[in-house]
Amino acid sequence: MECTAKELAEYVGAQIEGDGSLRITGCASPTSAKAGEVIFVEAGGHAEATARMMEAAGKSAARCVILAPGVAMAGKTLLRAANPRLAFAKALAWLHPAPRIAQGIHATATVARSARLAEGVGVGPYAVIEEEAEIGPGSQIGAHSFVGRGARVGADCRIYPRATLYAGVRLGARVAVHSGAVVGADGFGYVPTDDGYVKFQQIGTVEIDDDVEIGANTTIDRGALDATRIGRGVKIDNLVQIGHNVEVGEHSVVAAQAGIAGSCKVGKKVILTGQTGLSGHCTLEDGVILAPQSGVPEGKTWHAGAVLFGSPARPLDKAKKILAVYGHLPELWDKVRKLEAAGPTSEAGKG
Amino acid sequence: MECTAKELAEYVGAQIEGDGSLRITGCASPTSAKAGEVIFVEAGGHAEATARMMEAAGKSAARCVILAPGVAMAGKTLLRAANPRLAFAKALAWLHPAPRIAQGIHATATVARSARLAEGVGVGPYAVIEEEAEIGPGSQIGAHSFVGRGARVGADCRIYPRATLYAGVRLGARVAVHSGAVVGADGFGYVPTDDGYVKFQQIGTVEIDDDVEIGANTTIDRGALDATRIGRGVKIDNLVQIGHNVEVGEHSVVAAQAGIAGSCKVGKKVILTGQTGLSGHCTLEDGVILAPQSGVPEGKTWHAGAVLFGSPARPLDKAKKILAVYGHLPELWDKVRKLEAAGPTSEAGKG
Amino acid sequence: MECTAKELAEYVGAQIEGDGSLRITGCASPTSAKAGEVIFVEAGGHAEATARMMEAAGKSAARCVILAPGVAMAGKTLLRAANPRLAFAKALAWLHPAPRIAQGIHATATVARSARLAEGVGVGPYAVIEEEAEIGPGSQIGAHSFVGRGARVGADCRIYPRATLYAGVRLGARVAVHSGAVVGADGFGYVPTDDGYVKFQQIGTVEIDDDVEIGANTTIDRGALDATRIGRGVKIDNLVQIGHNVEVGEHSVVAAQAGIAGSCKVGKKVILTGQTGLSGHCTLEDGVILAPQSGVPEGKTWHAGAVLFGSPARPLDKAKKILAVYGHLPELWDKVRKLEAAGPTSEAGKG
Repeated sequence: MECTAKELAEYVGAQIEGDGSLRITGCASPTSAKAGEVIFVEAGGHAEATARMMEAAGKSAARCVILAPGVAMAGKTLLRAANPRLAFAKALAWLHPAPRIAQGIHATATVARSARLAEGVGVGPYAVIEEEAEIGPGSQIGAHSFVGRGARVGADCRIYPRATLYAGVRLGARVAVHSGAVVGADGFGYVPTDDGYVKFQQIGTVEIDDDVEIGANTTIDRGALDATRIGRGVKIDNLVQIGHNVEVGEHSVVAAQAGIAGSCKVGKKVILTGQTGLSGHCTLEDGVILAPQSGVPEGKTWHAGAVLFGSPARPLDKAKKILAVYGHLPELWDKVRKLEAAGPTSEAGKG
Repeated sequence: MECTAKELAEYVGAQIEGDGSLRITGCASPTSAKAGEVIFVEAGGHAEATARMMEAAGKSAARCVILAPGVAMAGKTLLRAANPRLAFAKALAWLHPAPRIAQGIHATATVARSARLAEGVGVGPYAVIEEEAEIGPGSQIGAHSFVGRGARVGADCRIYPRATLYAGVRLGARVAVHSGAVVGADGFGYVPTDDGYVKFQQIGTVEIDDDVEIGANTTIDRGALDATRIGRGVKIDNLVQIGHNVEVGEHSVVAAQAGIAGSCKVGKKVILTGQTGLSGHCTLEDGVILAPQSGVPEGKTWHAGAVLFGSPARPLDKAKKILAVYGHLPELWDKVRKLEAAGPTSEAGKG
Repeated sequence: MECTAKELAEYVGAQIEGDGSLRITGCASPTSAKAGEVIFVEAGGHAEATARMMEAAGKSAARCVILAPGVAMAGKTLLRAANPRLAFAKALAWLHPAPRIAQGIHATATVARSARLAEGVGVGPYAVIEEEAEIGPGSQIGAHSFVGRGARVGADCRIYPRATLYAGVRLGARVAVHSGAVVGADGFGYVPTDDGYVKFQQIGTVEIDDDVEIGANTTIDRGALDATRIGRGVKIDNLVQIGHNVEVGEHSVVAAQAGIAGSCKVGKKVILTGQTGLSGHCTLEDGVILAPQSGVPEGKTWHAGAVLFGSPARPLDKAKKILAVYGHLPELWDKVRKLEAAGPTSEAGKG
């Protein structure tokens, strides 16, 4: 895919300054870009970081730069955009469309007779699509992927090689599932008895709405009796665990190695950063942000917009004040020892 | 699978009150149940939660309810059981038997001539069973699963699609291994030298006893020289790491994303909750409970029945007292500052 | 593979004492060894642990022991080595060579016509090697493994069954990739907008240098625009997450369930222990050691040789002093309360 700078400006919604006939062959970083590639400079951010990026962009071989209005840069064709990163992301999607996962039905795939594959579905080598499964138009099922009995995959989904969709799970449109992800394995449900644990058969399912992305080796368990639900536009990183009966609201983000235990309710636009954990039956209302490695105890509710840190998590401003003192605990101890040492004297003074 | 309320009561060991001829078609949650489905109300627990469940059960379309003796509920056929959750779990197992993973030997499977498959073994599409491997009667090996040379799988095991059993590992009877789990990869053993790390070839194995369940994408490493051992009835959640030479005792539970480093000894009925970690060479005696995200330092021993929290972990009652003060550190700091400010005056008073 | 004690001594560079004609059939631990197997006793370490190992070695059926010079042991053929563990690792590699993963090109494998396989390459059942991929001499690609378009695998690599190499990733020589590992999935890059997240297409790659080992179910994401880079000799355990654009220097070690967020720079000979986490854009210089479950905040730099503990991580000596007081916070609180109670009296004393 190639275009002119003018065409690219129109596509990404930018104002062009300079040579609109410039041939654009792709996107790149400032340091690795070739002359025909477009780069960008992030707007906002730390002044120091911006200065570094401006310098790298100026030195880059790239002759076309996406940057914010009002920022000077000599010798380049400029694409002015209020949000350069967003404009660059659009350029990426246009010039570097996601690579094909599977085209046509590979001769080695095993597709059950009762499975329904819509038009334009691709199925890679050795993929297995079981009875009554449905694959929506334009979806691609990678090599070695497994789509269980009665599972439903919406339109234009990208199931990368070696993903597992257990029987009966449902994916909306434009869902991406990366390699090694497992959707719909049994939730972790047992009844303790004196003779050990008795399995609580997990007969629920998983429902994943449109435009969700699921990272490599992430696991999303089926509900115990009903469904585990992932809302529209949710982005889930690698090695994330989502337990049975969990609900995650629209446009929330779950970073790598985070874990959400059973029956948690996570609102919309929540951000769970890396290695965070929610114990069972927590509620995070809309917009809550949980800092890295933080944890929320069993059953706890945090209200909309809370920004949290620590294990157990506390509001960040409070947590920062506590941490500031925590770092001086040895001094605090010494202070108290000195006050105690002074104490008897003053007690003596009482007499 | 269907039955009458009377048959179900007998099967789960409950006393029936009401219409024993009621047709039961399955199990469900109160909110999603249809008339013919059975639901349950948990006994014990918080009064508030119980009240909510009772209300939901009362309003449910379900006409049959499993609940504790002595609790009133009008208009339903009641199955009285001392442990309603346990009775419901039995109902689930009867009415919703675990779905078939594989039946017969699929034409596309690759089974070595020297592998021994007992009667009733199912092998799914593209599964690989290498030389000298043994699969016990009634076991099912899912699509794309890999059973290495000389590995032994006991009777009635459920190996879900896309699981890996490295060469030589041994599973008892009724073991379930979920998709993406890897049993028997090399332990993390190297010898540091000035020129980098020299591999310590891992020639041990993994021995998994009867009735163990292993979650999706969990990894259990082979021992360095001897065996990593998982005891009878142990339940392991998703994305758990178990290092080489570890021993886990009977009926212990390991929740999602927990990690047990090499050579740890974990007793019987231990509970490792989510995202907990044991550093190498720890010992947890029987019944120890480790709260979420807690960690036990290298070589540490905790005695039977300890309930622990924090990283490093401390007994929970102590940890709670510490945390209570931790939350007031800024105030504590202020108090000490005020005492100091008052100090010179009192010292002056000495004069 | 078998040899005499004399041959083994020569191979591992040890001085022999005793019967050089002893037939050595393999390596083992003291407790499980048979007469013909060689064992070792670690040098250094805690006196108590060493005493235990010496006793176990003395009682062992093994007739050949690798141990440090100057340590007495009766009735055995001794192989004296300054570093017995290293000598034993060499013995292991010689007597127990890594088992074959794949030999020849299995009839069921799908190898693109344009893929280039060097001499001696093994490809297991159902493996997929896409267009333009290159596999170096002597490398083995396990069953169900996936090598994407244009990926390059160096010489003598061991790709265990069920691993994924996304399109275009590059591996050096002697790289081991365990089952379930995913190299080159999309980095976690999106641009937030009012309507949700817009994907930042990840067009970079992954470059893995020689002698790297990658554990089971570990994920290493491709760079956003350039490459994620893993240096020579790096050892990565199971279930590790390495984000886009990360660089890990030579001979560093990353233990199980550790996570390195995007754009971090990790120096040489760094040790990230289990469940540690680096937030985005951190820098750890050469030789930094991060204790278990510790975390480094966004953008933080730690200088060469720092030994760190906690979340947020602090230098270990400081962290230990803080933790010592932390454990006494309830006492500290009581002390301050007592001082306060004494306070008014002393103030009264002022009058």
